[in-house]
Amino acid sequence: MNVTLLAGGVGGARLAHGLDLALRAAPAETPTTAPSAPDASPALTVVVNVGDDTELHGLAISPDIDTVVYTLAGLNDEDRGWGLRGESYATLAALRELGEDTWFTLGDRDLATHIVRTARLRRGDPLSAVTAQLARSMGVLPHIVPATDDHLATLVDTPSGRIGFQEYFVGRQHADAVLGLHFEGADAARPAPGVLDALDADLVVLAPSNPFLSIEPLLAVRGVREALATARGRRVAVSPIVGGQAIKGPAAQILETLGHEVSALGVARIYADLVDVMVIDERDANLAGPVADLGLAVHVTDTVMGGPPGRERLARELLALA
Amino acid sequence: MNVTLLAGGVGGARLAHGLDLALRAAPAETPTTAPSAPDASPALTVVVNVGDDTELHGLAISPDIDTVVYTLAGLNDEDRGWGLRGESYATLAALRELGEDTWFTLGDRDLATHIVRTARLRRGDPLSAVTAQLARSMGVLPHIVPATDDHLATLVDTPSGRIGFQEYFVGRQHADAVLGLHFEGADAARPAPGVLDALDADLVVLAPSNPFLSIEPLLAVRGVREALATARGRRVAVSPIVGGQAIKGPAAQILETLGHEVSALGVARIYADLVDVMVIDERDANLAGPVADLGLAVHVTDTVMGGPPGRERLARELLALA
Repeated sequence: MNVTLLAGGVGGARLAHGLDLALRAAPAETPTTAPSAPDASPALTVVVNVGDDTELHGLAISPDIDTVVYTLAGLNDEDRGWGLRGESYATLAALRELGEDTWFTLGDRDLATHIVRTARLRRGDPLSAVTAQLARSMGVLPHIVPATDDHLATLVDTPSGRIGFQEYFVGRQHADAVLGLHFEGADAARPAPGVLDALDADLVVLAPSNPFLSIEPLLAVRGVREALATARGRRVAVSPIVGGQAIKGPAAQILETLGHEVSALGVARIYADLVDVMVIDERDANLAGPVADLGLAVHVTDTVMGGPPGRERLARELLALA
Repeated sequence: MNVTLLAGGVGGARLAHGLDLALRAAPAETPTTAPSAPDASPALTVVVNVGDDTELHGLAISPDIDTVVYTLAGLNDEDRGWGLRGESYATLAALRELGEDTWFTLGDRDLATHIVRTARLRRGDPLSAVTAQLARSMGVLPHIVPATDDHLATLVDTPSGRIGFQEYFVGRQHADAVLGLHFEGADAARPAPGVLDALDADLVVLAPSNPFLSIEPLLAVRGVREALATARGRRVAVSPIVGGQAIKGPAAQILETLGHEVSALGVARIYADLVDVMVIDERDANLAGPVADLGLAVHVTDTVMGGPPGRERLARELLALA
């Protein structure tokens, strides 16, 4: 079975990890005489948001890609939710002393990723190729594919004007009301190689990522929304809203300021034309009826993944939906 | 008194440090009512070799400039002779794990310098402006000026072919016989702003740096050799060869393979048309006559600087020669 996950940062990374664990553990559909090669085409593709990407100190930063790759590599900092475990910050301290603006925390080991990515992008490699190489270097087997190799930047309209995503999210700690979102470059951005093919999977999952900040910029890439709307496989979305609150980040506030109901039902309405099944948390079981009324199948379960066992359990349930 | 030092790496940096100490301690020539502002035009300009500059991991590395700046800032690793004191190497370890070739050691704090330099060069700032800014950020008052803002790369002809400077020096630990040197770009390279003015100083000192690897690429920049040959001030060279040996590095071997006498006299012959005074070590006092026969004044002293007191002592003797 081929599975594709559309993902933003932490929520997407955790579900990617769960799917990777579940697919590795799953018995092969067709018995083979030889064990599959370690570089055999993996069953899991993760298409990752690049609207958060930014440049800092001249380095190309792809926060969502790195969160997914680090998590799949088992190198991520689980407690903090971003970056690498056991990081040090000597370079950042020196950058600060040189007068650089260091509001965005970059660890020493994390910087190696950005340095390598930047060097390879500058020599002309597309982000998709650079990402595949970096993921392989870290021992990650699933395909990690950026939504696009072209420029796409999420800009956030706030009461004090339009600002870049990282200024909104990290710099101002997503405290501003989000009045609108603009995906700069989306009209011209083409899907990265492999993205449209990946949507032809047996199961396509929209991760419990922020619908506006993580999934929308991904769907805004030319042809992606249409390909998902007409995809042949089972299409499943997992609600990032549980009991009227976001598991992490500003999804609840943004739903509200953009005029949506702050609930799994509000999320289901956004995805209604794109998916077949909505997965909602058991705390929201009362919303199963209204979600079904949208014409969606509903799967009610514990959607809060926590650590690897919870991730794998949720992933197995998703695989069973296909 | 205005002093200009032409410098390569460690030897140049130590003498720059001595001159900075000596000039700061020297009584002002003209008494002033107000103490001079900390950003007053400094009496010392160091024109630094850029033939060793290279790009690693997409970052612009200027080893000689950094050695001079770090030493003047008091941040250098005195024991090792290069880099910063108390460095860590987390980024380099991570670069290695990502499959990067890490034969050139880069510390975490040192990397901040390269990251900032690279970002500013890429936005179009010339190396001279970037260097001035970096030096100021580290509290360095003397003017640090690269020989040129243009491309100039020292290439080394060895029995196994022509190789880049850092491959020769660091990668192969200067073990190859040097059959010749080529300064790529020198014909077109223009002196950086301030270089020719600096040669109009009251005292111009050729540091005890490698004559071929540090001083020659500097003189190869268009107009520099001519400006030095006709400079109005006192021009003094300090021999890097003491008792027939180099204090540091491959100067002795290179003198030999290029057909020069491996002595302070051999160095004096190379510089005879460019300087007025040759400073040789007291261990080479027997060479004072032959050096004088070249038409040069000779100053015999202890030229091995060691720590700050030795640097300042030698610098004071040089100032007295002006």
